[in-house]
Amino acid sequence: MEALRCLPGVGPKSAQRMAYHLLQHDRPGAERLAGALGHALRAVRRCARCNNFSEAEVCALCSSARRDASLLCVVESPADLVVMEQTHAFQGLYFVLMGRLSPLDGVGPKEIGLERLLERVADGTVREVVIATNFTNEGEATAHYAAEMLHQRGLKVSRIARGIPVGGELEYVDIGTLAQAYYERRPA
Amino acid sequence: MEALRCLPGVGPKSAQRMAYHLLQHDRPGAERLAGALGHALRAVRRCARCNNFSEAEVCALCSSARRDASLLCVVESPADLVVMEQTHAFQGLYFVLMGRLSPLDGVGPKEIGLERLLERVADGTVREVVIATNFTNEGEATAHYAAEMLHQRGLKVSRIARGIPVGGELEYVDIGTLAQAYYERRPA
Repeated sequence: MEALRCLPGVGPKSAQRMAYHLLQHDRPGAERLAGALGHALRAVRRCARCNNFSEAEVCALCSSARRDASLLCVVESPADLVVMEQTHAFQGLYFVLMGRLSPLDGVGPKEIGLERLLERVADGTVREVVIATNFTNEGEATAHYAAEMLHQRGLKVSRIARGIPVGGELEYVDIGTLAQAYYERRPA
Repeated sequence: MEALRCLPGVGPKSAQRMAYHLLQHDRPGAERLAGALGHALRAVRRCARCNNFSEAEVCALCSSARRDASLLCVVESPADLVVMEQTHAFQGLYFVLMGRLSPLDGVGPKEIGLERLLERVADGTVREVVIATNFTNEGEATAHYAAEMLHQRGLKVSRIARGIPVGGELEYVDIGTLAQAYYERRPA
C-alpha cells in the first residue's frame, strides 16, 4: 500500500483497494506490473536527439525519414508531443524540455534541458523552431527565455497562436483571451 | 401566458408561473414592464453609424471624441460589442452586423447589413477594419465574405486571433484548435 501511493492521484483508500485487489484477485497482474516497471526502469532512457523517452539511442520519430528536419517543435512534456502528433498538423521533429521554467521551485534553464536544446539546433539543419509550451505563466516564461536564447543563435523562432478556440463565440470566451485575440489580430 | 412565450427560454410552465406571479403578486411590475416594452419599441432604433441599438440618431459610442475613428471593429451582435468593450483592449469604433451569413436559413449579405458596412467605411476615416465575428462556421464565412468585400475597396482588414486561450494547456485543448494554433503561429 505504501509503495502504491507513489502513483499520481492514489491516496490511502485507493492504495488499499489496489493492494487487496492484486493479492486476492489478480496475482498474475501484479507479477506483470512488477516486471514491466523493472523493464521500463532499465530500458527507457532519453532520446539523444529530442530528449523524449525512448528505448533506442535515437527514438523512432527522430529516426524517421518522413519528417521535415528543418522544423523543430519545442514542447514541455511527452504528453504535449502526443497531442501535437494527434493534430497531424506538424510534420517536423520535436524537442521535449521535460519541464518548464519555475524559479520559485528552483527550476532554472539548466534543469529543463535548454542547454541540450542549443546543442540540438547547432548542427544547422533546423530552419525554424516552433515553441509550443503552454499558455500558463510558466509556459510563457519558458517560451520567452527559449526564444531569446535561440534568437541569439540567429535562428528563426515562432510561437503557436494564442486566441479564440475553434468554434469559439465571443460571448463565452474569457475577457483576457478576447483582449489577446485583438492584440494579436492578423491580416485577413 | 401565450404572449410571454415570445421570451427566449420561456416554455408553457414558465409562462404560466410568470403570468400568475404578475397578476397575484406584482401588478405594478407588470405595469412597468408593459410601459418599458412600449417605450423601447417606440424609442430604440438603429444608430446611423454603427447599426447598434440606440435611442439617438447616432449612439453615444459613435459620438465619443475619445474613440479612435481610424479603427472599426465588426461584430455579429450587440452582446459581442459589450464583451469587446469589457476587455478595454479596443479603442476604436464598431459596426454591428446584427447577424451572420447563413445561406441555409436564407440569410445573405443584404440581410446582415453588409451594404451598410460598405457605406460606413466609405468616408475615408477608417484605416483598419478588425473583423471580430465568432469562430463558428457561419461567423468564419461572414468574416471571409466581409474581408473580400473590404479588400476590394482597398481597405486594410484584420481578423482577431484564433488559437489557444490564455492560461490554456496543450493537453486540454481540442485537437482542431491546437492544429490552428500551429498553422497560425507567429514570429517569437
